[in-house]
Amino acid sequence: MKYYYSYDAFKNDTNELIKRVKPYQAQTILAIARGGLTLSHCMAEGLEIRDVQSIRTELYDKDCKRSELTLFGECLFQEHITKVLVVDDIADSGETLDFIMKYLRKNFPQIEFQSCSLFYKKTSVYEPDFWINEASKWIEFFWEKDFIK
Amino acid sequence: MKYYYSYDAFKNDTNELIKRVKPYQAQTILAIARGGLTLSHCMAEGLEIRDVQSIRTELYDKDCKRSELTLFGECLFQEHITKVLVVDDIADSGETLDFIMKYLRKNFPQIEFQSCSLFYKKTSVYEPDFWINEASKWIEFFWEKDFIK
Repeated sequence: MKYYYSYDAFKNDTNELIKRVKPYQAQTILAIARGGLTLSHCMAEGLEIRDVQSIRTELYDKDCKRSELTLFGECLFQEHITKVLVVDDIADSGETLDFIMKYLRKNFPQIEFQSCSLFYKKTSVYEPDFWINEASKWIEFFWEKDFIK
Repeated sequence: MKYYYSYDAFKNDTNELIKRVKPYQAQTILAIARGGLTLSHCMAEGLEIRDVQSIRTELYDKDCKRSELTLFGECLFQEHITKVLVVDDIADSGETLDFIMKYLRKNFPQIEFQSCSLFYKKTSVYEPDFWINEASKWIEFFWEKDFIK
């Protein structure tokens, strides 16, 4: 059973997420592509953050035996950056967010990272610091549904 | 005089842009942040392109005398990539797109770059390869207007 997540629902939830995240005072938004791109854009506008970057992961078949999450893109944090907000649409299995947060904390120990998403599944291996809705059904986001394939 | 550009108008125009851009068969989308992020996300879904990256520019005051456009972010194109689509919301002055297209063509001569935007101003110094609307008024995009500041 699929649940269509419209732009209007997104607008309301994103404004609520902006309110909750604002006190954290992030200087940079790191979007997880593709899912987190639109949310990052709208949150960056609301939070008035100009520095938005993106990375993405892929299941990459390294040795034809098993697939591994691989990171594409490089994070370039300017020297004065101390707080970064990592943004994705949903923590579903949670593996992507878990992988990325560990990578960031290991590689940039001088920077604090917090994460947020619109949806969170109770079975996710990672719980974002901020999230709005618990996902029970299959979510069909407007950016997946509204554009011709 | 401001013109509010709603999600519904965006949806229609983006679908038209997807149709026009599709024959180019881009393998990668390069979003110009922040303005091009939502458009890049939705086009990537419609065009079924997973590889979405982003860069951004800033007017950076180098020597306290004049401001120069400076690029933030690094493009990492995998070896098999031959066609990249550069995406921004509007070619207004056109300086950002002009700067980025020159940078890309100089630094990645083996790759073909084409550009697109939703709006194009006749006074822009750069005309994207694909664009939908001519901008005469000040456009207020829904991502600028719909999210609390």
